[in-house]
Amino acid sequence: MADADPELIDDLLAGKHRALARVITKIENRSEGYRDLVSALYAHTGTADVIGITGSPGAGKSTLVDKLAKRYRDRGETVGVIAVDPSSPFSGGAVLGDRIRMASNVGDMDVFFRSMSARGSLGGLSTATGDAVRALDAFGKDKVIIETVGAGQNEIDIVRTADTVAVLVPPSSGDDVQMLKAGILEIGDVFVVNKADLAGSDKTVQELRGMLEMRESEGPDDWEPEIVETVAKTDEGVAGLVETFDDHAAWLDETGEREARERRRTAEEIRRLLRNDLSRLAERELERKGGIEEFVDSVVARETDPYSVVDDLLDPFEAVTDESDGRHND
Amino acid sequence: MADADPELIDDLLAGKHRALARVITKIENRSEGYRDLVSALYAHTGTADVIGITGSPGAGKSTLVDKLAKRYRDRGETVGVIAVDPSSPFSGGAVLGDRIRMASNVGDMDVFFRSMSARGSLGGLSTATGDAVRALDAFGKDKVIIETVGAGQNEIDIVRTADTVAVLVPPSSGDDVQMLKAGILEIGDVFVVNKADLAGSDKTVQELRGMLEMRESEGPDDWEPEIVETVAKTDEGVAGLVETFDDHAAWLDETGEREARERRRTAEEIRRLLRNDLSRLAERELERKGGIEEFVDSVVARETDPYSVVDDLLDPFEAVTDESDGRHND
Repeated sequence: MADADPELIDDLLAGKHRALARVITKIENRSEGYRDLVSALYAHTGTADVIGITGSPGAGKSTLVDKLAKRYRDRGETVGVIAVDPSSPFSGGAVLGDRIRMASNVGDMDVFFRSMSARGSLGGLSTATGDAVRALDAFGKDKVIIETVGAGQNEIDIVRTADTVAVLVPPSSGDDVQMLKAGILEIGDVFVVNKADLAGSDKTVQELRGMLEMRESEGPDDWEPEIVETVAKTDEGVAGLVETFDDHAAWLDETGEREARERRRTAEEIRRLLRNDLSRLAERELERKGGIEEFVDSVVARETDPYSVVDDLLDPFEAVTDESDGRHND
Repeated sequence: MADADPELIDDLLAGKHRALARVITKIENRSEGYRDLVSALYAHTGTADVIGITGSPGAGKSTLVDKLAKRYRDRGETVGVIAVDPSSPFSGGAVLGDRIRMASNVGDMDVFFRSMSARGSLGGLSTATGDAVRALDAFGKDKVIIETVGAGQNEIDIVRTADTVAVLVPPSSGDDVQMLKAGILEIGDVFVVNKADLAGSDKTVQELRGMLEMRESEGPDDWEPEIVETVAKTDEGVAGLVETFDDHAAWLDETGEREARERRRTAEEIRRLLRNDLSRLAERELERKGGIEEFVDSVVARETDPYSVVDDLLDPFEAVTDESDGRHND
């Protein structure tokens, strides 16, 4: 299947950061052959522990991620970071400023940083992020951190590619906590009240606790979402956060939830790819049959109607799926 | 193509409201054969003038629609109303209370009222509304009014099936006007400040005017969105609103915009149906090949990967679209 540049893959598997960077660029740009690349890398994946971190701008995500990365490095683990900003059309440096400059220092860096943006379609960004995580996983990174700005549906989709999801909440009057979208509350395994030295952090912790108690527990083996207070700037609480992440990773393994999550993600991904590819096929079929405008002409002239047009277009496709169950419906 | 119950269609075309009601029920429930029904009716469509009315709950939509319908009836036109509530799982009466009772009086009523709900998928509701409009059009209604609650993306999709779009704005402190979603501002041809007898209505008109001025005019033939003040309860301003709708209808015809809108809608509809049907085909193909879980097993075991799975699944479909351009890519 994968005729993808074998040298590039070998270089990545051999631990060359430059090859890793090139692969992720191909993934981000959806360059020719990126699918074969990801296919070829897949067999080498499955060992990285993936942590997703989301939260509104200004919550202190980048500082916290830096401190986390340092802790993992200190205990001898390798780390890769993918920072995703769905609202930005820029990537490869523009978003992260100083931090990305570490990545240009490719040969000898400790932590591989990489930003990704909404250059492609938004729907595709979570797929692209998942593919980039796979590249880091195949490369051999022990920890992969996905950092994403904001709390919309796109961010939720992105952060769900992680095994452990942490939501950063800034201390506030409590109103902000109320505004936390249900979707974000549902997906958080760990809630981090960062800048815990600021006024209002106790109240935020309390409010969070109240909201999390309303979250339905599904069984005795369930993970009870943890609330951790940190001051990323001074490294306060970061050791505790690492411990909580370790606890969650252990829980994932012991309960079989890690595999369950992987299975859910895989099923979703197959369905998403299938939908996307079929849309592409449908557009191609429309073009092949003369283009959408010809069909519109016939419909507007009342010679046909949208349902009949689509039925006709899909007849050959239907035939494919009917083949083996021996029944045709026309 | 259309083997759909010919008697039901004949009855509808003969002006029997009971047949019309049954057809719309089939459309709403996506009952077996509804596609053929719509296909069969399509040739008889294209004469109704379709007016979409949207606005937040309490803006006075139903009262205004009643008054509008009466005006059209008074000048001898036939009227059908489809009231859509995307947030309600109920239909066929629950939403509209008293008004729907008029519809049960099928034989001799002046105005055909019908509510539709989000019983099916939300994405499908705009398609179902479009299909119901087509049934009313084929039936011979001169005016079809689509009334929809709220201002979300679903409502926008629904109201865009109309030729003329009116947005109801309640008089307020002006804050509400600021909150009018850009999407709604963009699609409105006419803005109705209803309950114009209440305090704050002048301010609301001013604010609206300010916002509409920022809307880009694309050419000299462009329709300049009108602001009309009404007090639906007392019928004040309703005659003026009907006049504005007439002006807009004339503009649609003179500029060719009516056909342009129909063409855009038709293209969108073909694409939407194509996507939906292909998704259904894809699910069927997944089932036929053993079900999604088997594929997930192989991916999790690293025997394959999502891209390869989807490539394999789509190979026969790709073959169909490759057939006539004589090139295969594998």
